[in-house]
Amino acid sequence: MKWNRSLPSGTRDKLFREANGAYQLEKQVNDIVKKRGYQRIDTPVIEFEDVFYSEEKNEKEFYRFFDKQGRLLVLRPDMTMPIGRVIATTGIQPPLKLSYSGKIFRSNDAMLGEQNEVTQVGIELIGYTSLKADVECITCAVEILEELKIPNFHFELGHAQIFRLIVRFLKLDDQAKTNLQLYFNNKSLTDLNQFVALYPSELDAFICAIPKLFGEPHEVLSIARELLPKSSKIIQVIDELDRVVQIIKSLHSKISLTVDLGLVALMDYYTGVLFSGYADLVPDIFLRGGRYDHLAEQFGHSIIPAVGLGINLDTLVTLQYQLNNLASLEQPTTLVHSSLALLSKAEALVKENPDYQLSLFETVEEAISYGKKWRYHQVIEVTQDTIRKIKVGD
Amino acid sequence: MKWNRSLPSGTRDKLFREANGAYQLEKQVNDIVKKRGYQRIDTPVIEFEDVFYSEEKNEKEFYRFFDKQGRLLVLRPDMTMPIGRVIATTGIQPPLKLSYSGKIFRSNDAMLGEQNEVTQVGIELIGYTSLKADVECITCAVEILEELKIPNFHFELGHAQIFRLIVRFLKLDDQAKTNLQLYFNNKSLTDLNQFVALYPSELDAFICAIPKLFGEPHEVLSIARELLPKSSKIIQVIDELDRVVQIIKSLHSKISLTVDLGLVALMDYYTGVLFSGYADLVPDIFLRGGRYDHLAEQFGHSIIPAVGLGINLDTLVTLQYQLNNLASLEQPTTLVHSSLALLSKAEALVKENPDYQLSLFETVEEAISYGKKWRYHQVIEVTQDTIRKIKVGD
Repeated sequence: MKWNRSLPSGTRDKLFREANGAYQLEKQVNDIVKKRGYQRIDTPVIEFEDVFYSEEKNEKEFYRFFDKQGRLLVLRPDMTMPIGRVIATTGIQPPLKLSYSGKIFRSNDAMLGEQNEVTQVGIELIGYTSLKADVECITCAVEILEELKIPNFHFELGHAQIFRLIVRFLKLDDQAKTNLQLYFNNKSLTDLNQFVALYPSELDAFICAIPKLFGEPHEVLSIARELLPKSSKIIQVIDELDRVVQIIKSLHSKISLTVDLGLVALMDYYTGVLFSGYADLVPDIFLRGGRYDHLAEQFGHSIIPAVGLGINLDTLVTLQYQLNNLASLEQPTTLVHSSLALLSKAEALVKENPDYQLSLFETVEEAISYGKKWRYHQVIEVTQDTIRKIKVGD
Repeated sequence: MKWNRSLPSGTRDKLFREANGAYQLEKQVNDIVKKRGYQRIDTPVIEFEDVFYSEEKNEKEFYRFFDKQGRLLVLRPDMTMPIGRVIATTGIQPPLKLSYSGKIFRSNDAMLGEQNEVTQVGIELIGYTSLKADVECITCAVEILEELKIPNFHFELGHAQIFRLIVRFLKLDDQAKTNLQLYFNNKSLTDLNQFVALYPSELDAFICAIPKLFGEPHEVLSIARELLPKSSKIIQVIDELDRVVQIIKSLHSKISLTVDLGLVALMDYYTGVLFSGYADLVPDIFLRGGRYDHLAEQFGHSIIPAVGLGINLDTLVTLQYQLNNLASLEQPTTLVHSSLALLSKAEALVKENPDYQLSLFETVEEAISYGKKWRYHQVIEVTQDTIRKIKVGD
């Protein structure tokens, strides 16, 4: 069977209004972050696989292939690790406010119906320890979503250290850690009850409450504080999360914001505040970010604090398409036709009128028929001495 | 050895001014073609290998890998074939004026120092038989190069049928065809003399003259007509090329334009006029195009006439970078600092002033030191009751 008429699973073509709309949307976002002082960085689609090495790897999702020297390459599954590579290997000095837009790739199972080739736009704040940088990420996201008029968007905040501190406190091995992560993700009360029976500690009450510890921040964080022993390091994490929530609320009074203390970072490089973005009519999380203070370290560099944010632009394009919010295409009104020899006369006429278009047809009859079909107002026929206007539309 | 600090050969990072400049340049080109009435199309980076099937294939240059079902995928080496696939497999009706911009991939030998990941922008005119479409391609290219202020650009025209008609007339087998192509490309007079001794015909004089048949169009085409037998089909091709040259000259009186009758199409789908673009300071051809009337056919569709043009944008970015023509980055003048709690006050001040930027540093001392380093004019410290201006620059 020849596959030359099909597309690989998880990929698709965008045509005309959707393609133009996607491009304009990407530009809008790039313009916003540029105005906020972010500097663009553009890394290759192809990288050595080692760049994406991670302890908790999900490497079966990578598209892998070899270069001519037999070294393993991948299509970048993510934009943050390549930026870590750049920071660690070039002489550029943090602090930096970086932005990017481009494609990332994941080889998902065909059955899941997920996109394997996704356009992502994002920012990375490198070298800032202050929580201001965490807040800036959310503020920037809010500005983007407001400017794109995304209806009823919502943020959920968590903290990577909650899960990590539990793992460390209970000295969990890899298997137990993976299990606990699963129970957190599934908000599985039964599994967590069984888990604390196996790993009893002063954190039992908190761990078992995790499935319910999401929702209105003030309420959730208060309950968490009551459940945790006063000496627990997790209390400090809760306080940090609380501080970020308060500042975001003071900056964006109308924002819809909840916390989820059971949020486990999707990528294991996250070390601090985590955030996810949702919106009406969007089935999945379309925006993710957080703090990852050890990124450059794994490229042999000293520790550099960092916070970042990535937005799945294709999801927003689909949403804007549904809402009929994508920029519409301007429709020319007039088709200017001439013989091949008089093309320069026709071209000059088109140049003077922004809604005129040059006819590339052999005959004026073809131009008229095309003009009628695509609802032009008129066809203008340029001859040696005259200009003839032929009405084709209403 | 870990490769996580290196980049695959033929790829590179773009940072800051270069990355921003590349993005702006791509946008400039996209804006020009949009204004000329081209509609954007966006196909995936990943395609089935069969899409790029070609008789005269150069497939060792493809990046290949498998999907989860074990089907062979490639990184698209070209934008035209995917567009052929779209035309052949969707219901969209020609005529169409399409445009694209995005990355293409070739796995070149590391020693050649070529880029393996290249940003290409281009247009495809689908369904137009008229030479006007060929002329439109060049006109569009001229408009792009003039608007980007590319110094001393130059076009070279050829015709895919010259080589093809010789091959058909002499009934050459694949090996002889490959040899002849090599001799044409190398402008090798000695080899061609030996070749016509093996394959004698009434075309001998013309074939042996090929290495010299390039330069000023009127002169070259006149000589070609004299060397060719009156009955040769190649005469008609020469006449077609002449017509295109005349029209382009009438449209663009100052354009630098030569012909090369020994031009053999790089891709075997070309069937008509071929063109290449050169410019001062650019080592290679950075623009290629031509007519390829059988493209959709290889996807099982009926014949659709088409002309297209692709520009290597990275080459133009490098040139503009050398010439210091890339858009410069606006430098903010003022860094606005506050405590975490007063961030909303600082943010409000930044919003009012386009050249103000928010400080994300923990302390005002850090903000001042950063402001000095990066030549800001002042740091403004926002406190509960006051606004303090601290001069840091000249």
